[in-house]
Amino acid sequence: MKATWRADLIAGAVVAVLLIPQSLAYAMLAGLPPQVGLYASLLPLLAYAALGSSPVLGLGPVAVLALMIAQALAGLPAGVSAEAGALVLAAEVGLLLAAAALLRLDALSSLLSVPALRGFENGATLMIAASQLPVLLGSAAAGFTLPALASSAVHGGIGFTSAAWGAAAVALLLLSRRAGSRLLARLAPLLLLVVAMALAAFTPAADGVAQVGALPALALPLALPPLDAALWLHLLPSAALVALMAFVSSLAVSESLAQRRGEKLLPAAELRGLAAANVVASLSGGMPVAGSFSRSILLHEAGSQSRWTLVFVAVFMALALLLLAAPLAYLPKPVLAATIVVAVMGGFTLRHYGEAWRYARAEGLLMAAVTAAVLLWSVGAALAIGVAGSVALLIQRTAQPHVARIGRVPGTQHFRNVERYAVECQPEVVGLRIDESLVFTNARGLSDAVLARVREHRASVGQPQRVLLLMAPVNHIDVSGLVALQALHAALQAEGLRLEFSEVKGPVLDRLRAVGWLERHDVSLYLSHHDGIQAGEHALRPSQADHDAPGQL
Amino acid sequence: MKATWRADLIAGAVVAVLLIPQSLAYAMLAGLPPQVGLYASLLPLLAYAALGSSPVLGLGPVAVLALMIAQALAGLPAGVSAEAGALVLAAEVGLLLAAAALLRLDALSSLLSVPALRGFENGATLMIAASQLPVLLGSAAAGFTLPALASSAVHGGIGFTSAAWGAAAVALLLLSRRAGSRLLARLAPLLLLVVAMALAAFTPAADGVAQVGALPALALPLALPPLDAALWLHLLPSAALVALMAFVSSLAVSESLAQRRGEKLLPAAELRGLAAANVVASLSGGMPVAGSFSRSILLHEAGSQSRWTLVFVAVFMALALLLLAAPLAYLPKPVLAATIVVAVMGGFTLRHYGEAWRYARAEGLLMAAVTAAVLLWSVGAALAIGVAGSVALLIQRTAQPHVARIGRVPGTQHFRNVERYAVECQPEVVGLRIDESLVFTNARGLSDAVLARVREHRASVGQPQRVLLLMAPVNHIDVSGLVALQALHAALQAEGLRLEFSEVKGPVLDRLRAVGWLERHDVSLYLSHHDGIQAGEHALRPSQADHDAPGQL
Repeated sequence: MKATWRADLIAGAVVAVLLIPQSLAYAMLAGLPPQVGLYASLLPLLAYAALGSSPVLGLGPVAVLALMIAQALAGLPAGVSAEAGALVLAAEVGLLLAAAALLRLDALSSLLSVPALRGFENGATLMIAASQLPVLLGSAAAGFTLPALASSAVHGGIGFTSAAWGAAAVALLLLSRRAGSRLLARLAPLLLLVVAMALAAFTPAADGVAQVGALPALALPLALPPLDAALWLHLLPSAALVALMAFVSSLAVSESLAQRRGEKLLPAAELRGLAAANVVASLSGGMPVAGSFSRSILLHEAGSQSRWTLVFVAVFMALALLLLAAPLAYLPKPVLAATIVVAVMGGFTLRHYGEAWRYARAEGLLMAAVTAAVLLWSVGAALAIGVAGSVALLIQRTAQPHVARIGRVPGTQHFRNVERYAVECQPEVVGLRIDESLVFTNARGLSDAVLARVREHRASVGQPQRVLLLMAPVNHIDVSGLVALQALHAALQAEGLRLEFSEVKGPVLDRLRAVGWLERHDVSLYLSHHDGIQAGEHALRPSQADHDAPGQL
Repeated sequence: MKATWRADLIAGAVVAVLLIPQSLAYAMLAGLPPQVGLYASLLPLLAYAALGSSPVLGLGPVAVLALMIAQALAGLPAGVSAEAGALVLAAEVGLLLAAAALLRLDALSSLLSVPALRGFENGATLMIAASQLPVLLGSAAAGFTLPALASSAVHGGIGFTSAAWGAAAVALLLLSRRAGSRLLARLAPLLLLVVAMALAAFTPAADGVAQVGALPALALPLALPPLDAALWLHLLPSAALVALMAFVSSLAVSESLAQRRGEKLLPAAELRGLAAANVVASLSGGMPVAGSFSRSILLHEAGSQSRWTLVFVAVFMALALLLLAAPLAYLPKPVLAATIVVAVMGGFTLRHYGEAWRYARAEGLLMAAVTAAVLLWSVGAALAIGVAGSVALLIQRTAQPHVARIGRVPGTQHFRNVERYAVECQPEVVGLRIDESLVFTNARGLSDAVLARVREHRASVGQPQRVLLLMAPVNHIDVSGLVALQALHAALQAEGLRLEFSEVKGPVLDRLRAVGWLERHDVSLYLSHHDGIQAGEHALRPSQADHDAPGQL
């Protein structure tokens, strides 16, 4: 037990060292004063520790959410401060996640397919880096899409002292990573911050460079977020996107770490923990929070054993808050921008596009389209394209009912496609395999596909009396599918052919039985396709069929 | 050949007798002067006859489209006449259908599932009947949703003479249907029209009843529709809905008749014919047209043999145009309203809801929701709910990856769920059946589901060395599914277990091979699950596997 506490304390210290500079930087990225990042890294961590499930979720401000928050706050009505907007956003994100937890909507996270998520994260990474370039170079340009950045860059100018600070900071951070010492690489961002603040405070090196500037007294502002109905409504769509992304990205990292650690993850508990953390962030001067990929990996590698680690992180953050209060004013902004750029670019992976493209071109294109939408349009449009595109591809994939004519592999009880194998067919019965669930997207084509195969059979094998459908790959039949089966039954009857099924799955059969479909249409059932082919005149009737019993499959 | 012509001529006359009153009535329903319905029943029929495919599609104005047109024209900008709006709408519908034909988007029609379509048609039927009640009763109330109708009915009043005309017309039409004579039932609407016009013209019976009123000279107005960009943009969303509904409803009727007649339907040709008909309607003073269910059935029953029938219908419509020019002014509107109500209510079927509910509650609810949306909200909202709801149900159905532990049915080569059957399992290998395509909606749960089954196997059978997945029901694996398989492979490896596949489908295998996935992860393949269970140490490696060859399954 004592060993666990010590491991958690050390892991907490390691992560706090990374979280201090990141929290300041991501607050700036979101267009908020730096202390908001610190506030968001304090009490929300305790809330997650109390209600969440993962011992290694690096909760706090994250870069992708910061970009989304920046876009959401860019459209605030006049007279509303960015801080107030961030509090409302955090409250809404927390309440939406809580509602999702109550309504057991954790399955909603599956709406973001892997290509959509990866395309989005890559696009956001590039956009974040691009948005920090002007800060790094002392330019007045700003914007959260490439066109906005480009058009404002024309008159942005460049501050050479700023650019020197920025270039030096990026170089030092990259060098520290290559130095081979893990400890140095981890300490580098914090050391850089301290050195930069000292240099700026005691030398004229930062004259003419944008600095963070004097902050109000650093004290946790415990209060309700502004209760302005119009503001809440205005921010609601953005909050829904932020909540979705917070949940999906947190779940993805905690899930993959849970598998690596042989632990079981509870998505519902994750949702609860994230909800609580965001509500607390809105009550304590913060901004929306989620699990960071880099900090979660770090927690795992540093040996975190329980959620107590987050409590220790919060204690260290409180210390930092006290110590940084005065010197933070001197921090040159290009140094913060360098921290952001170096932190996010490690997550950019180009090979995902190639991999997806080689496996399935449409999914590769979707990934690229989502990335492009983040860069050129907005995070909202990109997520919408990702979700709609994934759904469209899924539908398109089920849109052709593939019906294969099958015959027996000689000497076995296996049946295979007549076009791929040398198999045996009996003239008397057309054996067909339905290679898809029968649902509304493909139901309309069923009769045509089956009748075409029957014609083939007539031309190449002989005159059939029965059509035996192997239903093993049919996982569902919806109402449209049922109507299509009815039409098929009528069309076959018109040609004097009997319709029969083999290997119908339990749940599918339960449904058909619930409405008495098989009895009404006098469709015979067989446990195996082989039995069905052999049955001939001795077909079993549905009521006597030795088949999957109703209930759970 | 001569017999065909004669059959087509008779069928044409039969349908024209029904089309004359319907075209006048549906134009009124759409909020347009009655002659627009006649114009839409002339040249568009020739266009479809030239380019379409079905010999029995009852093309012309249809009730559901008329309701949609009425809602679209209700929001026209000031200064634009309803006729001008209808021409633009028809042009857009035609061009959208032509674009869909060019881009081979005929699969789009599958977006409307059977529950969505039936729910919509029932809702539209009720709404059409409700919207005609005020006309029937001589009330000033009007509206195309129940709330609008109800609120305007308060001050609508009732015209007793009108109500008498309406009630008499409805009674006569219903009586003619029950009279047992098919000929009488078919002639009744036209006879009623003629008698009503005569009564109104030569007696004071229609004094105080709304009449059609004097029309401009009946001459086909051949001209381009108004080319006003703002108007086109304004009507575009409505046009897209009308185009979708025109295509889907026409396809549904011509498809079911084609199957009944043993003919092959070409959806692409249908799309082309409908596109041409609507473009021609916009050039000749008409309104959007589609295939009518009742008139198509009539064409089939009356023995139509070819699309020449539509040419004869057009000739009869031209004659009617000449003969009706003068007397039409006297036609009492309650009679037209009675024609509409009696025509549409025959299509209302309550039992569909119960059938869908018994088979799948969610689909029954969706059907009811779509109907309610038509009545309470708008046709656009109803179609959106229908499409989105169908897609959501489809996704939800694939959202749980069902993984069944399977064992051998003693004495056979068949494998069944251990929870449903008394089957044999070997300690050395966990046999699992994946009951769903592996796609983004369910990919995330794969590892958890498989690992849970492995734990069951350990507890009840023994310590395994291999996990053999029966992949026959897996019709697709998308990028998200591939990533999930990768995670599963890693998770099993961490427990010292080998991952193996049996009965992988050809197309699925082709994809996996294209990226060298099986080789990279050293996953063994078996032609049948039985072989895989028996194989033990003699597992085939992917390269030597005797399996489906790449290419078409």
